[in-house]
Amino acid sequence: MLEKQIRFGILGCADIARKVARAICLSPNATLSAIGSRSIDKAKRYAAENGFPETVKVYGSYEAILDDPSVDAVYVPLPTSMRVLWGVSAAEKKKHVLLEKPTAMHVSELDQILQACESNGVQFMDGTMWMHHPRTHRMREMLSNPSLFGDLKEVHSISGYRGDSDFLENDVRVKPDLDGLGALGDVGWYCIRSILWATDYELPKTVTALHGPVFNKAGVVLSCGASLLWEDGKTATFNCSFLFNSSMDITVLGTKGTLHLNDFIIPFNETSASFSFASESGFTELATGWAPLPRDHVVTTDLPQEALLVKEFASLVGLIRDSGSKPDAKWPTISRKTQLVLDAVKTSIDKGCVPINIVS
Amino acid sequence: MLEKQIRFGILGCADIARKVARAICLSPNATLSAIGSRSIDKAKRYAAENGFPETVKVYGSYEAILDDPSVDAVYVPLPTSMRVLWGVSAAEKKKHVLLEKPTAMHVSELDQILQACESNGVQFMDGTMWMHHPRTHRMREMLSNPSLFGDLKEVHSISGYRGDSDFLENDVRVKPDLDGLGALGDVGWYCIRSILWATDYELPKTVTALHGPVFNKAGVVLSCGASLLWEDGKTATFNCSFLFNSSMDITVLGTKGTLHLNDFIIPFNETSASFSFASESGFTELATGWAPLPRDHVVTTDLPQEALLVKEFASLVGLIRDSGSKPDAKWPTISRKTQLVLDAVKTSIDKGCVPINIVS
Repeated sequence: MLEKQIRFGILGCADIARKVARAICLSPNATLSAIGSRSIDKAKRYAAENGFPETVKVYGSYEAILDDPSVDAVYVPLPTSMRVLWGVSAAEKKKHVLLEKPTAMHVSELDQILQACESNGVQFMDGTMWMHHPRTHRMREMLSNPSLFGDLKEVHSISGYRGDSDFLENDVRVKPDLDGLGALGDVGWYCIRSILWATDYELPKTVTALHGPVFNKAGVVLSCGASLLWEDGKTATFNCSFLFNSSMDITVLGTKGTLHLNDFIIPFNETSASFSFASESGFTELATGWAPLPRDHVVTTDLPQEALLVKEFASLVGLIRDSGSKPDAKWPTISRKTQLVLDAVKTSIDKGCVPINIVS
Repeated sequence: MLEKQIRFGILGCADIARKVARAICLSPNATLSAIGSRSIDKAKRYAAENGFPETVKVYGSYEAILDDPSVDAVYVPLPTSMRVLWGVSAAEKKKHVLLEKPTAMHVSELDQILQACESNGVQFMDGTMWMHHPRTHRMREMLSNPSLFGDLKEVHSISGYRGDSDFLENDVRVKPDLDGLGALGDVGWYCIRSILWATDYELPKTVTALHGPVFNKAGVVLSCGASLLWEDGKTATFNCSFLFNSSMDITVLGTKGTLHLNDFIIPFNETSASFSFASESGFTELATGWAPLPRDHVVTTDLPQEALLVKEFASLVGLIRDSGSKPDAKWPTISRKTQLVLDAVKTSIDKGCVPINIVS
């Protein structure tokens, strides 16, 4: 069994890596092999504090993980500005790359990573966990059912949480030279991904930032929104922010159906998640109530969504390592489209909220 | 008891008037006194089909209702383009005016109605029913509680239903010379009202239509959206449409709280309605779930919201008729602000989605 497992190294001691380390341990085809930080002391403390098994190697540099032949894949939660360097370096050392989101400061950087992955035959995937929850697949099935949902007309997505005044000036997520895309990168990524997911990854024709983006003193986005328009007339809007109470909504409107959920990024509960779906909604006589009512659909899961992410990634890595398969192009393609739209929002903000054409 | 009741006349045989006629009968301080249509046969048939009491007078013209001294107030559900004529005429005949929404084709028309109401000392109110549901008051209390909700940052509202191809070309709601504001007037009105309600009726600084409005052959709006920006930086977006499955959502995001409901215009059930409210949302260790969870709040009502609307209106009319009070300025003020924002959205659409400054 053990030799069939994919051995992970984690670059850095980010808070989110604690969740992914647990996910690696929970996933049946993955094992945590190494952790590295630029400070060996910090790495040792981190490993101890999070109860990593004694078998996990602790390194004082990221390079040491990449040079370890017993590491198959790396998880890279380093700040956005460092992802291109370490994503490319990992691929060149033949490590499969699980990269946190946003994948890069700009799609040109992501393209360097994807090119390095392709030429070295390693799998790429970004760390968008909710994509791997069975609820997401179930919702996708319903949206794809023409008799239940009809044609997609409009998507709305909200993602955000409130940072305190210290966070808004000093956190890594609002530093121009670290996570320089701010709220757009950290939480807007999820909105954009959810919109692309709902459209089955059809790119919009134009993207226009909404008036009123908010910046911190360093010019990093704390709050913004955008509207998206597709060739066939469907539209989407989103809002992402570090200024409001934690929110993570998707609303998808079709000619026949409506989907709602308010916990798409992190489900309210780990083992069971729900969404509301209405189809061919109508009203009672004199419109004093709805008939039929929307229905709640509950989807349970044995593994948390982040473990399912690791399992899916490790499974693809296993096919490459053990069966000579080629990397799956689906995941890098989705990442690239998300980054492309994110870049367009950023450009629109920078240009005063003008429409930006998306060129694939 | 009876002499304390407010006696209503209804102008026209609109479908919505059936609901309001029932509401008048349900309201303890109101009675249905007369119905009129340009065709006496149509009015008679309508009265019979809807089981109106024999005491209800049936007239073959709108003027006849306005000339009836036993009618205190009129309900005007005529098409939007006719509201200015009949709103003004009713006020000049000293009838209190309950006017359907949108109140006019343009705020300049509404101003004529409001001026006529003011100079004749009659009450004005528009027919936005959900404003009168006790749930709405309960939600307002929570949004006004700084420790639960904090400061308002963002509102999103959706309102729409799907019209078939015949509706989209031929219904009164998409005829340029009748309900010429189309989906913006019919369902966008609710979105705009809900946004103003959430901001406690503070007007936005600018209104910008979203790219991608849809029109029918006659140039009437079938689907559109807008983003709103306030002086203090808060923002709102909405989408209204005749092209998607029935939807009526409000999402209100504050620094501390989040409000969600998906049935704000017509509650799912007549006697009990709910909303979801989250305050100071956080996550469990490793962010594997939410703590605390959002809570559902249920509000019951003895009377349906449209009867509460009639009751409130009749109560104000009674104070004027029986106690010499002045008309309540709150309701016309709210109507006017809603129309003002609606006009700005229309102007923005007409000018290619440029920002429009709101001048009160």
